Amino acid sequence: MNPRKRVLPLPKTGRGEQTRRKILDAAQREIGRRGFAEASIATITAEAGVAQGTFYIYFRSKEDVMRELVLHMGRMLRHHLTEATTGAKDRIEAERLGLRAFLDFVRRNPDLYKLVEESQFVDEKVYRQYYTDFAKSYRIALAAAEKRGEITPGKGDHATEVRAWMLMGISVFLGQRYGLWDPKAPLDPIVDVASAMVAGGLAAKAAR
Amino acid sequence: MNPRKRVLPLPKTGRGEQTRRKILDAAQREIGRRGFAEASIATITAEAGVAQGTFYIYFRSKEDVMRELVLHMGRMLRHHLTEATTGAKDRIEAERLGLRAFLDFVRRNPDLYKLVEESQFVDEKVYRQYYTDFAKSYRIALAAAEKRGEITPGKGDHATEVRAWMLMGISVFLGQRYGLWDPKAPLDPIVDVASAMVAGGLAAKAAR
Repeated sequence: MNPRKRVLPLPKTGRGEQTRRKILDAAQREIGRRGFAEASIATITAEAGVAQGTFYIYFRSKEDVMRELVLHMGRMLRHHLTEATTGAKDRIEAERLGLRAFLDFVRRNPDLYKLVEESQFVDEKVYRQYYTDFAKSYRIALAAAEKRGEITPGKGDHATEVRAWMLMGISVFLGQRYGLWDPKAPLDPIVDVASAMVAGGLAAKAAR
Repeated sequence: MNPRKRVLPLPKTGRGEQTRRKILDAAQREIGRRGFAEASIATITAEAGVAQGTFYIYFRSKEDVMRELVLHMGRMLRHHLTEATTGAKDRIEAERLGLRAFLDFVRRNPDLYKLVEESQFVDEKVYRQYYTDFAKSYRIALAAAEKRGEITPGKGDHATEVRAWMLMGISVFLGQRYGLWDPKAPLDPIVDVASAMVAGGLAAKAAR
């Protein structure tokens, strides 16, 4: 199944969209808390304050809500990162602000990691899409920064793709270490070290 | 439970160790193939060629074999990386050889990712230990390279720890993208781009 293809059409009314969001939010809490296998649709609908039958207007199954939830969180996160990095003076400042915003997001959404990780055992395609969507945004941003002369392009056809995955790996691992496992650690010194390494790695003007 | 503390003592005889390894190898295949929940101890012992009761001489439960398996794969991988990087002329060459060896390892052990990821849903402590053990090796290697003047130290007390997690994230994400999902992609151009970024990021002599 192509996860881009929604099984059910998106609700057209504002109220429908609101109900769908309420169900997704409740599913995030319930699956985050109990894991996918133990999560119950009855609990999700109770927490969302809707009748159990209402669930099936929006989602076909628990697998379906899991898929939508992962893509929904990915969109929320990308939106959050775009907002945080708008107005950055160059790619390196955008990387810095983006990493900081990501660590904040992880601390405020500690379920994110488990949901994304568990999704690969429910539907691997959706798990891959979550990351390939991020990689695509990253490639576009890096290519634009190369054009503007803010960073030095890597060698070869795959350089931008390779760098995109490296930068994602950096964020995800720092998010795990300092966002999830050490949620009281001051973030500025961590972001300082990471930014310097990223600036040097991309051979940014400021680092040359 | 402290996952460092083995529940059962390690077998003292060569034959005992051989049997334990056979069970671990069979568990790797069975859990990799069917996932932890569906994996059956009967299949594991049948594949290992031992009686079902023999399993319980070495492991207390399926959870126990999962824990041991993840730590065992971590040790195997670290051993493989140490072998591959011995004789490297400096940290940057070690990073390059290590990344290449890691991508090869992932291609030969495609179960590694699922096993490690799934372990967090079985016993989060063992999942954390898997990564913190790697981070520790990395910190030691980076600190030694700083002392030898091969790389420039990062700023602040946490710099080596932050860099260790960044480098792990880079390897894990490139391993996912090119080791697992694109297992035919030529590795040299990927490792070239990654090495250049790492060398620049650590402000290595060669990159200055």
